[in-house]
Amino acid sequence: MDSMALELFGLVAGAVTSAGFIPQLVRGYRTKKLEDVSYFMPIVLTAGMTLWFIYGLFLGALAVIVANIFGVGCCLVLIIMKKIYA
Amino acid sequence: MDSMALELFGLVAGAVTSAGFIPQLVRGYRTKKLEDVSYFMPIVLTAGMTLWFIYGLFLGALAVIVANIFGVGCCLVLIIMKKIYA
Repeated sequence: MDSMALELFGLVAGAVTSAGFIPQLVRGYRTKKLEDVSYFMPIVLTAGMTLWFIYGLFLGALAVIVANIFGVGCCLVLIIMKKIYA
Repeated sequence: MDSMALELFGLVAGAVTSAGFIPQLVRGYRTKKLEDVSYFMPIVLTAGMTLWFIYGLFLGALAVIVANIFGVGCCLVLIIMKKIYA
């Protein structure tokens, strides 16, 4: 696979992974309940994805950078929603 | 940062991100309740992390490979736990 195709593949991987948080946000918004969701999950994921973002910067891997910015955003929204619905 | 240091940094990033699912598994195990956790989150994340795993294979990035194997494992456990506690 050439580097252009690999970057595109990575972008798809990043898009799918990031999209994984959307159903959780939608479910939380609909039910106004996030009691069973651990606070630590989005908090630790935010830390981890920030590190991935830095890793992506050093590697120059656009897919890793973009996916992790979006992922951090989703986790922050989840933390705020859990706070509001608590 | 040289490539060895970058790989180590990536491994830390992967370890932290993967660790993010552990508090959710622990909380679920303790409360025996995962009602507020969307089924689609771990399902879509499993698909996305499988793609990341393949991306890591092509890139030869050990950190990406290891982190995503662990992540897929955590998501599968979460799906099974939600099924059992339903």
